[in-house]
Amino acid sequence: MTWDNPLWQELLPLGRDQSTGGYRRYTFTEADSSCRDWFIKAAGERFLRVECDAVGNLWAWWLVSEDPDSGGGGGTPVAPAAGATPRATDMPSPQVRRAKGGNGSEVIGGVVAGSHLDSVPDGGAFDGPLGVVSAFLAIDRLRERGFRPVRSIGVAAFIEEEGARFGTACLGSKVLTGVVEADAARRLVDAQGVTFAEAMLGAGLDPDGLGAGAGLPQRLAAFVELHVEQGSALDGMGAAVGIAESIWPHERRRIEFAGRADHAGTTAIKDRRDPMLPFAATVLAARDAATEFGARATMSKVVPVPGGANGICSAVHAWLDARAADEQTLDGLVARVMQTAHAEGDRHQVTVTSRRESFTQKVEFDLDLRDRVATALARQGVTAPVLPTGAGHDAGVLAAVLPTAMLFVRNRTGVSHSPAEHAEPADCEAGVDALAVVLEELASR
Amino acid sequence: MTWDNPLWQELLPLGRDQSTGGYRRYTFTEADSSCRDWFIKAAGERFLRVECDAVGNLWAWWLVSEDPDSGGGGGTPVAPAAGATPRATDMPSPQVRRAKGGNGSEVIGGVVAGSHLDSVPDGGAFDGPLGVVSAFLAIDRLRERGFRPVRSIGVAAFIEEEGARFGTACLGSKVLTGVVEADAARRLVDAQGVTFAEAMLGAGLDPDGLGAGAGLPQRLAAFVELHVEQGSALDGMGAAVGIAESIWPHERRRIEFAGRADHAGTTAIKDRRDPMLPFAATVLAARDAATEFGARATMSKVVPVPGGANGICSAVHAWLDARAADEQTLDGLVARVMQTAHAEGDRHQVTVTSRRESFTQKVEFDLDLRDRVATALARQGVTAPVLPTGAGHDAGVLAAVLPTAMLFVRNRTGVSHSPAEHAEPADCEAGVDALAVVLEELASR
Repeated sequence: MTWDNPLWQELLPLGRDQSTGGYRRYTFTEADSSCRDWFIKAAGERFLRVECDAVGNLWAWWLVSEDPDSGGGGGTPVAPAAGATPRATDMPSPQVRRAKGGNGSEVIGGVVAGSHLDSVPDGGAFDGPLGVVSAFLAIDRLRERGFRPVRSIGVAAFIEEEGARFGTACLGSKVLTGVVEADAARRLVDAQGVTFAEAMLGAGLDPDGLGAGAGLPQRLAAFVELHVEQGSALDGMGAAVGIAESIWPHERRRIEFAGRADHAGTTAIKDRRDPMLPFAATVLAARDAATEFGARATMSKVVPVPGGANGICSAVHAWLDARAADEQTLDGLVARVMQTAHAEGDRHQVTVTSRRESFTQKVEFDLDLRDRVATALARQGVTAPVLPTGAGHDAGVLAAVLPTAMLFVRNRTGVSHSPAEHAEPADCEAGVDALAVVLEELASR
Repeated sequence: MTWDNPLWQELLPLGRDQSTGGYRRYTFTEADSSCRDWFIKAAGERFLRVECDAVGNLWAWWLVSEDPDSGGGGGTPVAPAAGATPRATDMPSPQVRRAKGGNGSEVIGGVVAGSHLDSVPDGGAFDGPLGVVSAFLAIDRLRERGFRPVRSIGVAAFIEEEGARFGTACLGSKVLTGVVEADAARRLVDAQGVTFAEAMLGAGLDPDGLGAGAGLPQRLAAFVELHVEQGSALDGMGAAVGIAESIWPHERRRIEFAGRADHAGTTAIKDRRDPMLPFAATVLAARDAATEFGARATMSKVVPVPGGANGICSAVHAWLDARAADEQTLDGLVARVMQTAHAEGDRHQVTVTSRRESFTQKVEFDLDLRDRVATALARQGVTAPVLPTGAGHDAGVLAAVLPTAMLFVRNRTGVSHSPAEHAEPADCEAGVDALAVVLEELASR
């Protein structure tokens, strides 16, 4: 696979900023609308039935006519005939059905692959789209080899996975699964004060219909999310594709350093209560603690108050993003960082307080599903290492209600959430192959 | 003197924020307009002639009818008669004359005391106003004791000394002395995009008339600025009043830390190029270097890019404010800080660049004037220590074109640019006494 594939060719220019080369695909904006049109067109070209659920997530279905769990012993794909290659004149106009149940309303026991199309500010081309493109291409591959599924196969694109517009990551899957309630979602606002409900209206969706999808575990037998790796672990292992073991628990902590405003030119060093000093010491402590605990700690958001160059701050607001393999390690990491914050605060007569702003428990992906995925890949000669990840994903949210799995595609530099994010074409190809193997395995019985 | 003096009673509520207790008196705003009205009323009550120069600086003159430098041997105060106490019915309506020459248009060889009325965000009650109030009270004192000046005595209030609205400190005195050109001043914008020219119009002033004051050295024989100390050196010396020796040279340097945006959850610690880390190390290095050099270094303004809590920054923009007793020490201080910035940048694969954003040379106050001030005070039994300061002042700007001096009033905590700024009533009283002595000395011959 190379980028001259029409799916990539049509998607790559959408929402790309010319100056940075990064993507700015924010939910329910014009760039997002172009991406949604792209999804509908890609589905139409493949005779997949497109549905938009009550949240705005998109689903494209290769339907089988019978319920595979009813004991009927294999359904019949609705259209096209296996192996058929649609021509331009065959293409249905891309009509989008409203899915009442929140997803594939007529589907029972479907198998879905997918990811998201939205981006962080100046994000890369792969984070999200790789999973959606690969799902369409995996369906192409299954049809080329004449595969007849006994379960309907879906491609999903969730909205607002990055939370870049409305501040809640995985919003599409969280509303779908009821983790975020409809009322709370409608009231979310973007940086311009536009509510999520208003943005839905702007995208032609009905905010009054917003709500969790009924009967998800019955409708969906499994969800598999393929994603570009957001680190370089696979590169170190020499593997093109990996399988997710778990998503690390994650804490976001807000730390307040309250000192005393003073004149930068006249206040003697000994008389200062400068909150920037314990903040700086805490940044360095977070780095050291992360190394020691084999974890991740990042301090990137900082708001100095008032933040003038010629005055000592009265306060510094800072945020710690901490993630570790398990909750005990995470607690130890955060405690270590806060120990430095308090000690350095005391040293500078700066008051330090903090509170947990968000916490996400560890997600263990379904063990049976993971074994089936690994075994199916191994049968094809693919050794896919099992590895944890520090990033949240829709698959992690859906894992609470149905079996989910994740495949990672090697990212040699490990860079992500950046225009420089990259995966080699051969590795992306290997990802499509692996996803096709997994869908074939899951949709065969 | 206590705060129940009517001058203080009327000034203290103006532009005061109820929640913080700090002042928000920004040039040409409503709060500033109230302060200007206060100035005009205070002058009117004292039969002083109020003039507004082309920049918007206010001047209130106790005029003598003859030029003291013409050899005429003493002028005659115009009004009121020495020792007269104006009653309410005597008060002239506060008409403000436009001063063509930029200051006391008819005055030759005048002696002026004053400061400014604008504030930093949430500034204290003393920084600026103490110098203006004390000048009015010193004139009251001179009249009470029947003093007949041979030079006109003025009270000045300069605009935008703090640069809180338009970003250039001492703007009023800088335009008056030609350091900032009229065109450049007119184009300055505030945070809302309002130009200085537009703000002048809003305050009823004519931006087309903006320009340097002609013949300043002829019109003004001396300027004396009384100011609350913005440190606690006088407290350490047990003195209520001090005399300024110099204003330390001052550098503002912008430092750019350019790293690489990455995912906070997935990027291994070893793979990061996090610009926040060398920034933090630089903050701590600035503190250590300031201590070692007996100087001041402050890093209070920082802008993380993009600054989301869950991503590693691509860049951190930071500012270093550095001041020292002489330029050589200042250069050494900045070099030391930048040494750490570069070393830590290299360690984290973060590119560090910097440029001097502003530089103010050392100001040595006029030695002859300082000696006259010190001698006059000593004659009254006042021992006023001579000390340098790290803060810029209008007196420092005016020092380039005419003899200027500064008096400092003790600030026991050293806190300034803060609602907690404070000076004891007895020390403020001592300041008025000292200023009266100095004006008497300077206006006697």
